[in-house]
Amino acid sequence: MITHEIGNKIRYFRKQKGLSQEKLALLAGLDRTYLAGVESGKRNVTIISLEKIANALETPLKELF
Amino acid sequence: MITHEIGNKIRYFRKQKGLSQEKLALLAGLDRTYLAGVESGKRNVTIISLEKIANALETPLKELF
Repeated sequence: MITHEIGNKIRYFRKQKGLSQEKLALLAGLDRTYLAGVESGKRNVTIISLEKIANALETPLKELF
Repeated sequence: MITHEIGNKIRYFRKQKGLSQEKLALLAGLDRTYLAGVESGKRNVTIISLEKIANALETPLKELF
């Protein structure tokens, strides 16, 4: 499912950058529990939140797909 | 803004396919007014709706970014 695919990509890039969920959530301006839900594929993330996450990861949004 | 960028891409691909908003909404299983809001950049589209739109456009999701 797309939510799981996106969540896995986010986790992959987050770990590559050596960031904790807490740190990434802080950088993205999102709640940590929300970010955890997105990473686990349980949340139907919106495009605005996804852009915040991509910016915090310094990764083009396109790369999350 | 990201919602406008995505909306413009969707409109571009929809017109390329010669589809009306009504037809694309029907193919995607979405409400026409919702799709119109996404195209105009007023709606903060979710990833699941975006996947439905990409599938209906027969376009890889990545291409919408």
